[in-house]
Amino acid sequence: VPATEVDIAEAEEFIRLHHEENHDLGPVEDRLAEVHAEIAATGTYRHTTTELTFGARVAWRNSARCIGRLYWRSLKVRDLRDLHDPKEVADECVEHLRIATNAGKIRPVMTVFAPDEPGHPGPRVRNEQLIRYAAYRGPDGGVLGDRRNLELTDLAITRGWQPPRTRGPFDVLPVLVETSDGESGMVDLPPDAVLEVPLSHPELPWLAKLGLRWHAVPVISNMRMRIGGIDYPAAPFNGWYMGTEIGARNLADNDRYDLLPYLGKRMGLDTSCEQTLWRDRALVELNRAVLHSFAEAGVTITDHHTESQRFLTHVQKEEAAGRKCPTDWTWIVPPMSGSLTPVFHRYYDKEEQVPNFFPNGTTGVCPVIH
Amino acid sequence: VPATEVDIAEAEEFIRLHHEENHDLGPVEDRLAEVHAEIAATGTYRHTTTELTFGARVAWRNSARCIGRLYWRSLKVRDLRDLHDPKEVADECVEHLRIATNAGKIRPVMTVFAPDEPGHPGPRVRNEQLIRYAAYRGPDGGVLGDRRNLELTDLAITRGWQPPRTRGPFDVLPVLVETSDGESGMVDLPPDAVLEVPLSHPELPWLAKLGLRWHAVPVISNMRMRIGGIDYPAAPFNGWYMGTEIGARNLADNDRYDLLPYLGKRMGLDTSCEQTLWRDRALVELNRAVLHSFAEAGVTITDHHTESQRFLTHVQKEEAAGRKCPTDWTWIVPPMSGSLTPVFHRYYDKEEQVPNFFPNGTTGVCPVIH
Ligand code: HEM
Ligand code: HEM
Repeated sequence: VPATEVDIAEAEEFIRLHHEENHDLGPVEDRLAEVHAEIAATGTYRHTTTELTFGARVAWRNSARCIGRLYWRSLKVRDLRDLHDPKEVADECVEHLRIATNAGKIRPVMTVFAPDEPGHPGPRVRNEQLIRYAAYRGPDGGVLGDRRNLELTDLAITRGWQPPRTRGPFDVLPVLVETSDGESGMVDLPPDAVLEVPLSHPELPWLAKLGLRWHAVPVISNMRMRIGGIDYPAAPFNGWYMGTEIGARNLADNDRYDLLPYLGKRMGLDTSCEQTLWRDRALVELNRAVLHSFAEAGVTITDHHTESQRFLTHVQKEEAAGRKCPTDWTWIVPPMSGSLTPVFHRYYDKEEQVPNFFPNGTTGVCPVIH
Repeated sequence: VPATEVDIAEAEEFIRLHHEENHDLGPVEDRLAEVHAEIAATGTYRHTTTELTFGARVAWRNSARCIGRLYWRSLKVRDLRDLHDPKEVADECVEHLRIATNAGKIRPVMTVFAPDEPGHPGPRVRNEQLIRYAAYRGPDGGVLGDRRNLELTDLAITRGWQPPRTRGPFDVLPVLVETSDGESGMVDLPPDAVLEVPLSHPELPWLAKLGLRWHAVPVISNMRMRIGGIDYPAAPFNGWYMGTEIGARNLADNDRYDLLPYLGKRMGLDTSCEQTLWRDRALVELNRAVLHSFAEAGVTITDHHTESQRFLTHVQKEEAAGRKCPTDWTWIVPPMSGSLTPVFHRYYDKEEQVPNFFPNGTTGVCPVIH
């Protein structure tokens, strides 16, 4: 990703938005003149901390795939833009986890590291999320762990990471950080920074004995945040989990832990044909286990029914504020029991807006919700 | 809907498609010349029976919301384009039901009535489907029956339909047909044309005693089929049911039979908060009942797992044939257990194609899958 000069129109649009939504900032012209001058002189400009915090919150508000946006104003932003060094960045990722975890009462947090500058890209986190479970290929072609992280696991091992003596399905990988000039840093996550929840089921005692678990905090760490034409390639952020992310996707997808066939058999279901809906039954029980276990452990989590209703409240609030609420139906409707949730039964605005998050490895702004 | 002159480009495109996909028809030029001459003389043209059958099948093939398209070549088309009279149209709808039902071994069938012609629109069926259950408002504001059909029930009563002496939740409405010059016809569906399946559950004996039922054949009857610029406003068509249409939508939606709160209580579930996933559990059992009961009754039905796999086979076959397969993700992914089905985990072509079906009351071609 070559770091280029800033798009002045996008910068100006953002500065105007910031002032429009915050009348106490006073007239916008002074700040616009400053930004113009700074871009003319350096090819880029530096957000004030207030702008950065506002921009990060609006990036969340504009995340068309996020059902949790009702809370967008509550995002806590850590301004660590002066950090470039991979080791220091990784260490502050650990600190992010501690602050966000908060002994189970999870706080939405973002840590912003150095932005891309002309000729000088910022650092990048290689992990998709700060906490990822390793995946090991077995001799028979099978995989132990989370298949999604095969590549990351290989990379960590290449860089010198030592898997635990006894490899397991839930080995936490280190955080890997890189810069464009080939420097890299790797830091193991200390146990006190990784709160995990062992899974049990309210009615199926054998489930607790399977050793299933999941981590408490989902910190997405590989997305590029774009605010007013500036790209922040390392700006890990977290909310709390919605149960289906763990129970209907991470532990259930064929190319993740693929637990349903095993659970179906343990539940004694007739798995000989699809008409018995054994998959659907096992899915519901796995999701009950997730919600039950997080509640038992005192870790914040939400269910898809409650969160769908809250999201519609958010859409209404946005409309009342005179704003569009860009929304991707295919991501907002939960991966199970879709039509039971009110978000299923309507259409949404579809134009992407910036500030926003984009996959790392892309450039600029993507105008369509595909 | 004013009936206008035919769009010549669309007519030509269709005739070319027909010949391209059917080389035994010989060169297309003769037929194109005929069509051009006919449009010049009359403002419209008449499809040959072969064109009508091909066009109807391709309209199905292009139905972006239909998961059942693997079978598109099997559609049986009844050419009744000479029928305008509302009573005769309604009688042939009854005959359609008999042919499609086939004692439970359901056949995909379409009956094509008179098209729109310049200054002379064709007849229309008012029912959304040929078989619809009545809805009656109670004195307390509650509704008995299928809320979706409140308006149709009122209309039928206005036109002289007599509800049964004892009103029930599953009273079959008559078929209502209209012409643009104000003629209307209404025909009661004779019991032998309406196969119904009483619902029971493989493990919950009390469910059979609730008197729940659903009809065997879904015949959509209010869509406008458009082939080569010609609109057929009355062209009822049917496949067989996918279980979720009944178990996750018709019997479960809040604004339909809304059965889940009742079933949840009868199942003894803790309905005091969403985290118990009682809705999801009741949903699965209701859907098991639907699939189980249709199988017991020997009536063709499919489940969402099987049908999703078949649909992906269809997409592959279409690609192999060098065609796009326009697909609306939001309709193809089933309303329950979405991510358990392989159709969830991919993207699709999104440009609408004609021939196709459109809601009655619209005109022309809608180019986007919204
Ligand atoms: C506070 C609680 C939050 C909840 C319950 C929540 C819920 C969700 C869910 C369920 C998804 C879909 C995930 C998937 O299917 O893979 C999602 C996606 C997303 N969320 Fe949130 N979220 C929260 C906080 C946040 C925060 C704090 C941000 C950013 C500041 C954010 C930005 C996003 C983005 C960018 C995506 C799309 C990710 C992608 O494209 O892979 N969310 N969220
Ligand atoms: C043979 C078995 C068939 C199956 C299993 C099947 C399945 C489905 C399903 C599950 C839907 C979604 C319904 C909803 O959610 O309301 C659908 C929609 C649709 N199907 Fe099929 N279908 C079949 C046959 C047909 C046939 C024969 C045609 C036309 C010739 C057709 C055309 C359509 C159209 C136009 C829609 C969209 C309806 C709308 O917009 O409301 N299907 N189909």
